[in-house]
Amino acid sequence: MIHVGIIGFGTVGTGTARILLGNRVLLRERTGIDINLKKIADIDIKRDRGLILPKGVLTSSADQLLDDPDIDIIVELIGGTTIAKEMVLKAISKGKHVVTANKALLATHGAEIFRAAAKHKVEIGFEASVAGGIPIIKVVREGLVANKIKAVYGIINGTSNYILTKMTEEKAEFSEVLKEAQKLGYAEADPTYDIEGTDSAHKLAILASLAYGSQFNIKDVYCEGISWISPMDIEFARELGYKIKLLAIAKETGGQVELRVHPTMIPEEFLISKVDGVFNAVYVDGDAVGSTLYYGKGAGDMPTGSAVVADIADIARNVVNGVPGRALFLSSPKPKNLMKMDDVRSMYYFRFSALDRPGVLSKISGILGKYNISIVSVIQKGRHEGKAVPLVVLTHMAREKDVVSAIREINRLSVVAGKTAIVRVEGQKNG
Amino acid sequence: MIHVGIIGFGTVGTGTARILLGNRVLLRERTGIDINLKKIADIDIKRDRGLILPKGVLTSSADQLLDDPDIDIIVELIGGTTIAKEMVLKAISKGKHVVTANKALLATHGAEIFRAAAKHKVEIGFEASVAGGIPIIKVVREGLVANKIKAVYGIINGTSNYILTKMTEEKAEFSEVLKEAQKLGYAEADPTYDIEGTDSAHKLAILASLAYGSQFNIKDVYCEGISWISPMDIEFARELGYKIKLLAIAKETGGQVELRVHPTMIPEEFLISKVDGVFNAVYVDGDAVGSTLYYGKGAGDMPTGSAVVADIADIARNVVNGVPGRALFLSSPKPKNLMKMDDVRSMYYFRFSALDRPGVLSKISGILGKYNISIVSVIQKGRHEGKAVPLVVLTHMAREKDVVSAIREINRLSVVAGKTAIVRVEGQKNG
Repeated sequence: MIHVGIIGFGTVGTGTARILLGNRVLLRERTGIDINLKKIADIDIKRDRGLILPKGVLTSSADQLLDDPDIDIIVELIGGTTIAKEMVLKAISKGKHVVTANKALLATHGAEIFRAAAKHKVEIGFEASVAGGIPIIKVVREGLVANKIKAVYGIINGTSNYILTKMTEEKAEFSEVLKEAQKLGYAEADPTYDIEGTDSAHKLAILASLAYGSQFNIKDVYCEGISWISPMDIEFARELGYKIKLLAIAKETGGQVELRVHPTMIPEEFLISKVDGVFNAVYVDGDAVGSTLYYGKGAGDMPTGSAVVADIADIARNVVNGVPGRALFLSSPKPKNLMKMDDVRSMYYFRFSALDRPGVLSKISGILGKYNISIVSVIQKGRHEGKAVPLVVLTHMAREKDVVSAIREINRLSVVAGKTAIVRVEGQKNG
Repeated sequence: MIHVGIIGFGTVGTGTARILLGNRVLLRERTGIDINLKKIADIDIKRDRGLILPKGVLTSSADQLLDDPDIDIIVELIGGTTIAKEMVLKAISKGKHVVTANKALLATHGAEIFRAAAKHKVEIGFEASVAGGIPIIKVVREGLVANKIKAVYGIINGTSNYILTKMTEEKAEFSEVLKEAQKLGYAEADPTYDIEGTDSAHKLAILASLAYGSQFNIKDVYCEGISWISPMDIEFARELGYKIKLLAIAKETGGQVELRVHPTMIPEEFLISKVDGVFNAVYVDGDAVGSTLYYGKGAGDMPTGSAVVADIADIARNVVNGVPGRALFLSSPKPKNLMKMDDVRSMYYFRFSALDRPGVLSKISGILGKYNISIVSVIQKGRHEGKAVPLVVLTHMAREKDVVSAIREINRLSVVAGKTAIVRVEGQKNG
């Protein structure tokens, strides 16, 4: 029998407990191991979670779990990077395996935690930290182990994807849709973490660490959110045959890894463009397997609980077999080889606010040309002589550094009335 | 060091060898294990596979591999169910682990092979047997281990999906598209195995065995192919908001498992409807995780090789750790509880060839009503008084047995000119 202790009895904690209790027989049939939920610790032991626990399981003292020599696996579900870190390190130091859904913790203090785990020969399961119920950690680490990973593209924040989907379907403003999402519980009261890309960046750091065998950190990820996206940009993208998604991108080019999160235009015929609402999807391109995609719910009590319990089952198998750390490969990571954002190459969508005067396009395209940015297509719409109208330009591959310089110069032009909207473009359109 | 021997140096054998040689360092970095491709056996040792092998690796004698005490893992890639079975059982009896891409072998003789493997404490890796490069076996067996599997829906035959996609895009006849597919190498000279659903049925038996913990056999799967599908049915489906796909379906209802492969109408807004061409996808619905989908290439040297090498890496880890059989859970399967096809419930699309006379719809709907089959919608198109015109009926849920009886009775009506086309329908349309 393997004993599990859960610290943090919130949404995911409740889902995890529900699965461990409800599917205990199924899990025993499948793994040959009886997994016993021995203790749950939470500061609030009064609230009704709609779950009947055996007597004595719930406690307000996390130490009761950490000090219990019977407990093999500690599940950390309190979140944050302070108390959670303390608890995780304490569990590790006591020789307990750890399962966590805490992406912020791993993307910030991952190196330290994995070092400690290696030292104490315990496992860290973190399937639930990326893309909720989608077993993407296992897929990248084991299922695609034979592949050099060429690229990973993830829609890994449900809140942002919900907002962008609604903006696209209803041609609505960001602020409107955000309010609606908050009402429905799809966005937090303070949505910054989700809409500014931080959550996606945490998850990308974890995925990229597995894909490229280095311990990447949140600081390594270039990050831009979606709050400035306007229905106009979504509409222009549609006209050009693209969807706008908040994409987390990891790519290896010439031995360097680029890591970035930003609104991205993707050809509408790509499968990942069709991932709508709160759903998540991760596209992985491997040198042997080619294009693959993994889709499912990225959050919620039961989907995330599914991932937590998968980790528990995996570790339980290893514990019973006496081989903890079986699939670990982050204990001696390769040195990072991070591409500077300046050197990243991409295609771009620019929306200039240009005065409707003769010669404006020539001025703008002249500056783009000077910086080696060549144009694929131009859309100029609406005529208001002397007034600002949107001028949309789609480019071939260009270097970020050149783009930054060119746009700075263009924004200074007297015929340009406002800040230029910039959306990076991924994926070649057919034909 | 782990030594591998490959029997069968065809397409997948070549892909597997290419990965083992080309990504050897990567695999060592990731697993900590040096995986050595020691021998490859094939009756044809002359043909150029575009691959430079170290001297002495290629042999025409499979026994050289089976008798080599150094070789830990035998990769069976010869296909078929006779010699392959012999080799696999021999490898097992010599204490060697086996990796195979052979779905026919496992769906026919799986019970015997897994029993032998359990007896000799060796592992059988078969990731490559279903959906090529998509790590769906690992996903179902490990990633979703916490879930009662409610349903599995697979597009798991690339040839059929390519043909149906082309028929849909080009409004072309089956026979035309098949010829084109054969020219392009997407269909075999004898395409029966693919287009009649047998290949999908083999793979479904394997998937269902994992999902439901019983050892299902090809004989347990109801199977219908796509060769009779006409562009007319695809067009009617489109009008009704559906795509037609060859779907492999496993579902548990009331403790019984239904297993079937047949052309299926799916709402066009479902993600799986958008899986086109030779690509495969498996949709898995778990009680905790909800809807998930896994997408990638279902065939080909490198994608299938990716799955073979993932199995090799997994087994290598277990061998090095001294725990073969770590994730096995088919050694003591649950008894089968298979639903009879007669009892299966589904929605249906019927296309009757009805004479264009007053009262025909009333006669047909009368018979449907008698068998408790209620109608959702009717499309009647084209007017040719006294001639046969298509009459399309979409139904609510009905029992297969009732449908068979009703259609038999309807086909006997004097006002019905030909055999009725029947396509089962899955998934509720929105709104």
